[in-house]
Amino acid sequence: MCCKIKEVHAKIRQYINKTPVMTSTTLNKLTKAECYLKCENFQKMGAFKIRGAVNAILNLTEEQKKKGVITHSSGNHAQALSLAASFFNVKATIVMPENAPKVKIEATRNYGGEVIFCGNKPLDREKKTEELIKQHDYTLIHPSNNWDIIRGAGTAAYELIHEIQDLDYVFAPVGGGGLLSGTSLAVKELSPKTKVIGVEPEKADDAFRSIRDNKIYPSINPDTIADGLRTSLGNITFSVIRDNVDKIILVTEEEIVKAMEFLWSRMKLVVEPSGAVSLAGLLKQKESIKNKRVGAIISGGNIDLTDFFAKFKGL
Amino acid sequence: MCCKIKEVHAKIRQYINKTPVMTSTTLNKLTKAECYLKCENFQKMGAFKIRGAVNAILNLTEEQKKKGVITHSSGNHAQALSLAASFFNVKATIVMPENAPKVKIEATRNYGGEVIFCGNKPLDREKKTEELIKQHDYTLIHPSNNWDIIRGAGTAAYELIHEIQDLDYVFAPVGGGGLLSGTSLAVKELSPKTKVIGVEPEKADDAFRSIRDNKIYPSINPDTIADGLRTSLGNITFSVIRDNVDKIILVTEEEIVKAMEFLWSRMKLVVEPSGAVSLAGLLKQKESIKNKRVGAIISGGNIDLTDFFAKFKGL
Repeated sequence: MCCKIKEVHAKIRQYINKTPVMTSTTLNKLTKAECYLKCENFQKMGAFKIRGAVNAILNLTEEQKKKGVITHSSGNHAQALSLAASFFNVKATIVMPENAPKVKIEATRNYGGEVIFCGNKPLDREKKTEELIKQHDYTLIHPSNNWDIIRGAGTAAYELIHEIQDLDYVFAPVGGGGLLSGTSLAVKELSPKTKVIGVEPEKADDAFRSIRDNKIYPSINPDTIADGLRTSLGNITFSVIRDNVDKIILVTEEEIVKAMEFLWSRMKLVVEPSGAVSLAGLLKQKESIKNKRVGAIISGGNIDLTDFFAKFKGL
Repeated sequence: MCCKIKEVHAKIRQYINKTPVMTSTTLNKLTKAECYLKCENFQKMGAFKIRGAVNAILNLTEEQKKKGVITHSSGNHAQALSLAASFFNVKATIVMPENAPKVKIEATRNYGGEVIFCGNKPLDREKKTEELIKQHDYTLIHPSNNWDIIRGAGTAAYELIHEIQDLDYVFAPVGGGGLLSGTSLAVKELSPKTKVIGVEPEKADDAFRSIRDNKIYPSINPDTIADGLRTSLGNITFSVIRDNVDKIILVTEEEIVKAMEFLWSRMKLVVEPSGAVSLAGLLKQKESIKNKRVGAIISGGNIDLTDFFAKFKGL
């Protein structure tokens, strides 16, 4: 396995934001801990995903760059890959179901991606993607189960640990497992004594069960509000998490909303539900983190505010 | 007149947050300028007001501290004075109309202030306040027309100019004029060539008219969404603004909401309507700020999110 997270960071840093680490007196009082939130909602395109996407594009051969990349996603990875590809004049094709939210289609197009629609069934996406790869020889960049994506994602924790030394814990959300895998690699590289805790919605607990039973369970139509965490582990993320993450804990929908409300109301941060999951986990572990130094990756802030502002525009 | 803003800053800095200056590639592209937003929504209690309040409390005599302070406000100043007073074990009494929003009453109490209710008519507040001062010999801390409040407020611009050199413009909102006055004093002290632009809602244009006609017009029941900017200039803020501010410009309600939406959606910052007014002005002046270095004071982020989160809690 090549490439330390440190080297990946040195390579991608000029293309990404060094996001701020935010603190809150109220949060510290509430937890009796020192909490440090790595705010990837302030990252380019609003989520940590750009880190892995840039790394993946940078690692393409010249031949691959000429032909272009492809992925199937309607979430932050679609936008991240589109934006990262645009930095290097590489064509990005994004396969999305016909019923994908309009705002996500538009955002992806705004970042320069070409959206190709497929049917609305789960298998339709992969079929369409394979078809296009056969036709154009595009390189598939998977949203999470890909070493470049994992190591890129790990640079968020890398920056956090560089800035805040001697952390006892780092909390990160887990969906497909790219961010949690990368976080655990960065932590083991820079600060091996720091414990890494994955946090997953109870309603999408496939990673929790997969690690517990040592076999990958697919995530089947989970209806958690944390829409970025509905996907399953892949073979790579499964093994990285199994070997490097200390524990996965579950949080309820109510706990996710409560953490999100804290971030918005008290810390003035616009964070999407998936981005509040790590804080929900941290708050749930109040007893174990007492008097400790605790980091959490706030993964992103892309949430549709159309309804919220419609109210104001009706003024 | 004693006290440079620099000295005030040195005195209060240990009690306040040094708030971050945020930038946005999208904003810079949109304006063709280099924009630097001083984010006082990340300040303690969510707004710049704590700066002036701490300064005012620090400048009390021991005798005054023993007796306590009073103000009439239902907004950020009420909370700021309560919190600042609590730092030094000084009693703060806040006079509020009976119909003040419940969240504001609770927030003020949470910060340690004692809320005393008065009638709902404008003159009721002042009557009740005078009555209490006569009774208890409290020191009145006016929300804006007070030198300590003005100089304290100016420390936000002081930090901005210290961090970001050679600004061509600084934009600040104007309501009672405390923040704009302090900003103009800080700019003249540190960077006299920088122009200071006050931004006011069209629907509460009393400061604009007051400076134009060289006489103070009261603000009469303005119905702007920017609830922090509904108050009038006082004799001190009027003269400081007249002598030190280069221009006051007006923005519409739509422009305020648009700026607020940009801050939330693109920059992931929870900002209250009054806090978005300076950016609304900056965006309106697009032509004059092209290729310039421009600062703006984002004054606060206290907005009631109860309705927004009620939706999520209904999940």
